[in-house]
Amino acid sequence: MAKSRFEYVRDFEESDAVMKQCFIVLRIDGSNFHRFSDKHGFVKPNDERALRIRGYEAAHGVMQIMPDCTIAYGQSDEYSFVLRPDTTVHGRRRQKLVSLAVSKFTAVYQFYWAHFFPETALLYPPAFDGRLVLYPSDKILRDYLAWRQVDCHINNLYNTTFHSLIQKQGLTASESEKRLSKTLSKEKNEILFQLGINYNDEKDIFKKGSVLIGAENRKENEGEIDLWEAQSSEESKHLQKRQVLVLHVDIIKDPFWQRYPNLLLPLEEVKKARKRQVQTDCNKKNNEYLFILVFYHALVFVILDFNIIRNLYGNLKHKNERTLCITVLPRGKHT
Amino acid sequence: MAKSRFEYVRDFEESDAVMKQCFIVLRIDGSNFHRFSDKHGFVKPNDERALRIRGYEAAHGVMQIMPDCTIAYGQSDEYSFVLRPDTTVHGRRRQKLVSLAVSKFTAVYQFYWAHFFPETALLYPPAFDGRLVLYPSDKILRDYLAWRQVDCHINNLYNTTFHSLIQKQGLTASESEKRLSKTLSKEKNEILFQLGINYNDEKDIFKKGSVLIGAENRKENEGEIDLWEAQSSEESKHLQKRQVLVLHVDIIKDPFWQRYPNLLLPLEEVKKARKRQVQTDCNKKNNEYLFILVFYHALVFVILDFNIIRNLYGNLKHKNERTLCITVLPRGKHT
Amino acid sequence: MAKSRFEYVRDFEESDAVMKQCFIVLRIDGSNFHRFSDKHGFVKPNDERALRIRGYEAAHGVMQIMPDCTIAYGQSDEYSFVLRPDTTVHGRRRQKLVSLAVSKFTAVYQFYWAHFFPETALLYPPAFDGRLVLYPSDKILRDYLAWRQVDCHINNLYNTTFHSLIQKQGLTASESEKRLSKTLSKEKNEILFQLGINYNDEKDIFKKGSVLIGAENRKENEGEIDLWEAQSSEESKHLQKRQVLVLHVDIIKDPFWQRYPNLLLPLEEVKKARKRQVQTDCNKKNNEYLFILVFYHALVFVILDFNIIRNLYGNLKHKNERTLCITVLPRGKHT
Amino acid sequence: MAKSRFEYVRDFEESDAVMKQCFIVLRIDGSNFHRFSDKHGFVKPNDERALRIRGYEAAHGVMQIMPDCTIAYGQSDEYSFVLRPDTTVHGRRRQKLVSLAVSKFTAVYQFYWAHFFPETALLYPPAFDGRLVLYPSDKILRDYLAWRQVDCHINNLYNTTFHSLIQKQGLTASESEKRLSKTLSKEKNEILFQLGINYNDEKDIFKKGSVLIGAENRKENEGEIDLWEAQSSEESKHLQKRQVLVLHVDIIKDPFWQRYPNLLLPLEEVKKARKRQVQTDCNKKNNEYLFILVFYHALVFVILDFNIIRNLYGNLKHKNERTLCITVLPRGKHT
Repeated sequence: MAKSRFEYVRDFEESDAVMKQCFIVLRIDGSNFHRFSDKHGFVKPNDERALRIRGYEAAHGVMQIMPDCTIAYGQSDEYSFVLRPDTTVHGRRRQKLVSLAVSKFTAVYQFYWAHFFPETALLYPPAFDGRLVLYPSDKILRDYLAWRQVDCHINNLYNTTFHSLIQKQGLTASESEKRLSKTLSKEKNEILFQLGINYNDEKDIFKKGSVLIGAENRKENEGEIDLWEAQSSEESKHLQKRQVLVLHVDIIKDPFWQRYPNLLLPLEEVKKARKRQVQTDCNKKNNEYLFILVFYHALVFVILDFNIIRNLYGNLKHKNERTLCITVLPRGKHT
Repeated sequence: MAKSRFEYVRDFEESDAVMKQCFIVLRIDGSNFHRFSDKHGFVKPNDERALRIRGYEAAHGVMQIMPDCTIAYGQSDEYSFVLRPDTTVHGRRRQKLVSLAVSKFTAVYQFYWAHFFPETALLYPPAFDGRLVLYPSDKILRDYLAWRQVDCHINNLYNTTFHSLIQKQGLTASESEKRLSKTLSKEKNEILFQLGINYNDEKDIFKKGSVLIGAENRKENEGEIDLWEAQSSEESKHLQKRQVLVLHVDIIKDPFWQRYPNLLLPLEEVKKARKRQVQTDCNKKNNEYLFILVFYHALVFVILDFNIIRNLYGNLKHKNERTLCITVLPRGKHT
Repeated sequence: MAKSRFEYVRDFEESDAVMKQCFIVLRIDGSNFHRFSDKHGFVKPNDERALRIRGYEAAHGVMQIMPDCTIAYGQSDEYSFVLRPDTTVHGRRRQKLVSLAVSKFTAVYQFYWAHFFPETALLYPPAFDGRLVLYPSDKILRDYLAWRQVDCHINNLYNTTFHSLIQKQGLTASESEKRLSKTLSKEKNEILFQLGINYNDEKDIFKKGSVLIGAENRKENEGEIDLWEAQSSEESKHLQKRQVLVLHVDIIKDPFWQRYPNLLLPLEEVKKARKRQVQTDCNKKNNEYLFILVFYHALVFVILDFNIIRNLYGNLKHKNERTLCITVLPRGKHT
Repeated sequence: MAKSRFEYVRDFEESDAVMKQCFIVLRIDGSNFHRFSDKHGFVKPNDERALRIRGYEAAHGVMQIMPDCTIAYGQSDEYSFVLRPDTTVHGRRRQKLVSLAVSKFTAVYQFYWAHFFPETALLYPPAFDGRLVLYPSDKILRDYLAWRQVDCHINNLYNTTFHSLIQKQGLTASESEKRLSKTLSKEKNEILFQLGINYNDEKDIFKKGSVLIGAENRKENEGEIDLWEAQSSEESKHLQKRQVLVLHVDIIKDPFWQRYPNLLLPLEEVKKARKRQVQTDCNKKNNEYLFILVFYHALVFVILDFNIIRNLYGNLKHKNERTLCITVLPRGKHT
């Protein structure tokens, strides 16, 4: 198309690609959600519907448009998305990443509102804000996520006690606030205990928040995979690109990270690791069992010798959609 | 609340307040809207519903949460919002401004979808991206807006001709594209003429795009003020804060800017100008006519002595909704 | 040359071109100069040698490597250099501009040290730091320069009084500091007066600081042009590229800026203005006098008819080195 | 001091602290040094004086004002300084760091010029430019240094061959350039061999550049520590704060980094490592050998045979608080 003499104004757009090889965290917060939750009658201290719709947004909104998002963590009205350090999605442009993530998050929130809140009409359009923060190492990145989970714990213990004092002891909001002023965790636990509540028995979704990782990381019988029955083929196409595993677990200590060692690797390392894994499996001299792990969008092509393939065929009938776990008899035993 | 040893990660958030005394432009674009408009059956080359819903978003979404937005310009699937150079809204923080604007724009789009597209269900959540650009002077800011309006003109002339060749002459898309390759504006006008279309008769909303300014700038009998009957008192509270005037006019040449001389002034100047105006009016020694201009959120309380009020009443019957133009007789003549 | 596999680290260099159409101010400050001036026996409160060497640096260092520097202002151990808003020097790259300016400033300081301080050996290498600040309009740019000149005034009045109390009344430093604590300008003037000093009679270089502009702006009999007899042809080549006019005048009020109306214009406007000027001069119908203004690096091509040239020759003997002011007799009078 | 109404212009200064926990590299380059080296008669292809003066600048200029500079690497007319990732020097402000480093580098260059070039007067002030680059991990930081050393190798091989063809075979510069066009390293080595030069015998300072680390890293009989006899007590105070070890060794492969394992640790780790070491040494139950390592700015001389140990015991009473480094023979052998 023709260029006008006004074209020069484009040069005022600054390039804003963020530093390479750093983890990208996108954090999205509800804007003025205190009022929003009041007006829409959210249950206090925690509205599970509200937490689930946000997890839903995260899973079916942001994690899908940003496939290099390796883990997301959500609590209260905020969500953090972590992109692998060598992602090149959208040229690592700050404003592009922030604005797209926030837009998608907002849109999915409304799109599924009626499903999660069938009896509450949306009174006015909600709004979120977002920011991008860089973290140079996996150690600091883990500290970031730990910071958010500690925040979840502190706020949830406070809110649970605060609302229990109101709901069970008939205190007013300001009396409850005063009662809790300067109390330590231990004291809040005690107050709850006296009100007949054992904080440890509270739901993990409230105490730990929600941890979202790609479903390819799933161990047997673990977590929930958020599945959704799409209403139209178009919705289906749009929303089911990536399956996401939802966990409510501790991410501050080491076990979580030892269980999922690939989460904070650079993409390049993940690809190498997968390749190595397949090669290792193929090279295995162990004649009794051969585990073939099939993962990540289920694109694996294994070449095995004739007998094993025949055996494999037999097992394929029973295969689980996403994992291919084959027991192969020792060579001599094939017939 | 207690601070954890992870708190330090906050220091990785960069301050991103943008330079003072520069115009802030927020431009929002549809993300992958070619596909979105196909799937939702938008009319080609221009779907007036789609243009109006976007104008609506702009007016009732972004311009309301950013009261220092002095003018917005929209065309196709994009909208630009101009904030006065000395605005301090949200601390001029880049990511906050971009993300909130995009989120609100997205949310309002969905909120009013059913009104503008009563017969088309939303198949999947739409997405927008946004960016913030700074312009140091009103001259360059005007060139920016001119750039967008020239772009509107070029694209609309092309699209109108392209779709006319398909719809009226039965060409395929690629034949039409080939036919138009390297044609000048003049030649496209001629093609349209031969197909029985006078481009000048096309609607201004298509040819010029949409210009949104605060309703306080409205001259008599001018433009449309986008009014909306809210469905709930909450929606009403949320949406009716600011009235916006929608125009489809040339903003490249001078007359528009001469007609609305306050649009590009700093807030500080606007306030001074208003004060001066009121003082001037009060100081006027002219006994025959007293003009009292009432503007900006229509908050003016005039106290006049009994006679004048009586006189005022008479004129109030004919008063235009937005401007209060009172003829007052010379003092001696009151009775 | 061959590329190594390490090349990729270059991508970590961020582009840092600063915003277009804004004035660029480079401010250079002495680092730890309090100690430096003590150790090298600078005269208190003002050492004219130290001020002059810094003016010299500015003139022969920075203003030469940055020809788009239109005005510089110096006081105490700091200097500010203003680049025209549309300069493209060094791609407007922030770090390049700051580091080159600071390096040149440092180098020239040492290079001419022995000339200004013939009896004081340099005991250790001095250091300066620098920063770049953008200003979007000439109004704000003028306020910036005014800020620095007000600072000069306040500090100089304080220092003059402080040191007079020590030198003339025998106070210790801390007594003098205590005496001046919370005094207003008026009171300081009074103290000086009692010590026999009329502050108004102090040298302008102390009270006003130093204003440097291109010598092409010089009016007749005005200011000093800092000339330097180079010791070698190489030095001469390096240092004499641009002549600079040094003034010690008020730059807060309007007269200065009215006297030199071109100083804050964009380069583009300056070029147009020059062109206009030449054309105006050529078009002048006045037969009695023809003023030919010659300016900026002495690039002027004058076309005159034979008689005038003969006349011109006569005048050339007396011509001032930098301005060519020719009186031409009315046509009829040439012989 | 009083504030003027112009004070507001300070708000235009942007905060420019760089990201935490990333290595900071400051690279300084000669500006227009091709011309400078010509005019001052530098020896081709390498002028050892010029390389040494630059090493000197680095050691006594920049590494002293930035004590967290852990390693510097120089070649040709450039130098890179690496600051530990958790340095807080000058608030990690980009412009402050760049400008101070460049200024100090420039100043020291001139200050010691006469020492290194006693027979060549400085004809005009030299200039350098600088930039700051961040690297998020030690792996990438090592790749950065490798990139510079590969560059040194490639340029030096080229220049050595280029000038040998001119000096030994009488080629003109353009003939020599043409002869070398598109040759591989191997071919250049061969050309040199035919001219009687074995490239491997060239000095390491030319082939490897200069690596500067704190003298506290020094192993026995290793490298040179650049000592300088100051001309004045002031110079002495200013310049001898930190002793620097100069090496001309490979920093691409692992051995260098294994030999000096502390170089790329964060400051915090270095401090912990030192503390641990001392505690370990004190707690050691091992009766055979007792290693006491002594550290930081610490000049340690260890002498081992029995007598010395006996002597040591005596000395331990008087031991200096900061240095204590002893290897002890097996107990049985003491008598």
